[in-house]
Amino acid sequence: MTSLFGGIEAGGTKFVCAIGRNPQEILAQATFPTTLPDETVQQAVEFFRQGEQRFGELAAIGIASFGPVDPRPGSPTFGYITTTPKAGWADFNFLGAVQKALRLPVGFDTDVNGAALGEWRWGAAQGLDTFIYLTIGTGIGGGGLVNGELMHGMLHPEMGHIFIRHDRNIDPFVGCCPFHDDCFEGLASGPAIEKRWGKRAEELPQGHSAWELEAHYLGLALVDLICTLSPQRILIGGGVMKQGHLFPLVRMKVQQLLNNYVQAPQILEKINEYILPPGLGSQAGVLGAIALAHQALGMS
Amino acid sequence: MTSLFGGIEAGGTKFVCAIGRNPQEILAQATFPTTLPDETVQQAVEFFRQGEQRFGELAAIGIASFGPVDPRPGSPTFGYITTTPKAGWADFNFLGAVQKALRLPVGFDTDVNGAALGEWRWGAAQGLDTFIYLTIGTGIGGGGLVNGELMHGMLHPEMGHIFIRHDRNIDPFVGCCPFHDDCFEGLASGPAIEKRWGKRAEELPQGHSAWELEAHYLGLALVDLICTLSPQRILIGGGVMKQGHLFPLVRMKVQQLLNNYVQAPQILEKINEYILPPGLGSQAGVLGAIALAHQALGMS
Repeated sequence: MTSLFGGIEAGGTKFVCAIGRNPQEILAQATFPTTLPDETVQQAVEFFRQGEQRFGELAAIGIASFGPVDPRPGSPTFGYITTTPKAGWADFNFLGAVQKALRLPVGFDTDVNGAALGEWRWGAAQGLDTFIYLTIGTGIGGGGLVNGELMHGMLHPEMGHIFIRHDRNIDPFVGCCPFHDDCFEGLASGPAIEKRWGKRAEELPQGHSAWELEAHYLGLALVDLICTLSPQRILIGGGVMKQGHLFPLVRMKVQQLLNNYVQAPQILEKINEYILPPGLGSQAGVLGAIALAHQALGMS
Repeated sequence: MTSLFGGIEAGGTKFVCAIGRNPQEILAQATFPTTLPDETVQQAVEFFRQGEQRFGELAAIGIASFGPVDPRPGSPTFGYITTTPKAGWADFNFLGAVQKALRLPVGFDTDVNGAALGEWRWGAAQGLDTFIYLTIGTGIGGGGLVNGELMHGMLHPEMGHIFIRHDRNIDPFVGCCPFHDDCFEGLASGPAIEKRWGKRAEELPQGHSAWELEAHYLGLALVDLICTLSPQRILIGGGVMKQGHLFPLVRMKVQQLLNNYVQAPQILEKINEYILPPGLGSQAGVLGAIALAHQALGMS
C-alpha cells in the first residue's frame, strides 16, 4: 500500500484538512474556522494525530496557505505567513509549527500554487508544463507552473493586484482593494461585486448586467496573463466562478480583446478547453495540499 | 581555444550579425537592412561564410528574431516567423533557411528571449532564475527566464500587448496598436510617443510632460508583470529607454503604485538594482543570439 499523506488547505476564513493519497482515496476530511494561529494549528494537528491512530502513520504533510507567505525553500522565513492583516498571523512560522508538532516532512506553498500542483497531478492540467490557476472569491489570487515548476521568483505571484483597464464612465465604482483601489481584485472579487451592486454575487440573477461587467474584467485580466506568461491553459476556481455561466462569457471576451493577435489554436479554435474550471472542483485546494505533501517527499 | 559562434539579431528594420565567443571576443560584426527574407538571409550567410574563411569554422549559429515566431523545439513550425505583416516574412522557415545554407546547429528564439539569455550569461541577470527582459522601442516586447528556462509556454509572451489602465481624461490619445488600440505598446512605444506629441522621443526635452506620462505607463505595466511573474529583476532596453532619465521616474512609479503591498527588499529598498538597463547595452541583442548558439550546442 502506498504512503498516506495529510493536507491543510489554509484559508483566511476556514481550514480544510484531509488525510489520503489522491482524489479517489480521501480517508478523512474536516473543516473548521480560522481563528488564532496557535489554536487553529492545534486543531489541525489533533485531526492528523487522530487520523494516524485510525489509518496509520502519515508520510508527509502539505500546507497550501493563504498569504502573503514565504514559499521559497532555503529562505530564513520559508513557511512563514508574512504581512497579512489577519490578527495574529503576521510573521507566523506556519510550517515550523506544524513540523514541530507532527515531526514529519512538510511541503508548503501558496493556496493557489498548491491547487495548481493538484490540478497538474490529478486534474485539468495534467501533462502541461506552463499553466495558471486563478481563484476569484473573497480575494483574487493566481499561481501555476512555468517550465514544469511552481512559480516563485522573487516571492510569489500576486495576480489579483495587476492593474486592468477601468473606464469610470462605464463603471464609476472606485474599487475596494485597500492597497490599490481599482486593481483586478478591487474591481472583480466577490466583495467588489457586493459593494458595487449592493447584493452578494449569488443573489444576482444570471442576466444581470453585473455578469457582463465581471466577464469584461476577467477577460481583461486573462489577456494580461496570457500575454505575459503564454500559459497552455488557465483554470479558474473560487466562489465567484460557481456562477458557471461566466465561463462562456469570459472566453468570448478573451477572444474579442485579443482580436486574433495571438495565433494559437488554443485561443482561436479551442478556447472551451483553454479556460476551464478546476478538474478537482471544490476539492482542488485540499488535494493541492496533499500534492504538496507528495512533493515534500520528492514524489512529484 | 574555445568554439566560435555566429549570432543573428534579426529585427524588422535591420539585421545585426556577429562572430565571436562572448562580449570580450567579438571578431566581426555587420549590420544591414531587413529586406525580403531570401535576400536578407543570403547576406547573413555570406557574412558567416567569409567569417569562417578568416577566423575558422563556426560551431553553431543563434538567431534572436522579431516575431511572432514559433520558438518551441519539436513543433512542426519551430523556427518559423509566423504571422508578421512584414512583406514576405509570414510563414518563413527562418531557422530552416539558415541551417540549409550553413549546415550548422542553429539556436532560435524571440529577440527578447535571446537578449534575456545573453544578459543571464554575461550581463545584468547573472545568477537569477526568474527575470524579465523588456524592450521599449518601435514595438514593445518582453521575454525572460522563469525557473531557469526561457519562457515559451503556449507560444511565447507578448508582453507589449497587455492592457494597462488608461485614463482618457488625462491622456485622450487613443493608442496606436493596430490590434488593440490602447494596449501597453499602443500607449507607450516609440511610435505612440511620436503620434501623441507630434515629435519623436529623442526630440522631446527631459522636462517635457511626455516623460512623466511615459513613466506612468511603464510603471503600470511593470506592476502587472511583477504581480504576474514575481521576477527577481527587470531589465529594460530599446530605443525609448536610451532616455536614461526615465529609469528613476519608472522606479518611483512602481513603488508608488505597488504601495508597499509586495514586501520584498528588492522593491522596498533596492529598486535601483531591481529595474535596470541591460548590462550588455546595445549589444544585448546580438550577444543574445550568440548565447542562443551556445545553447544550441547544449552549452548553457
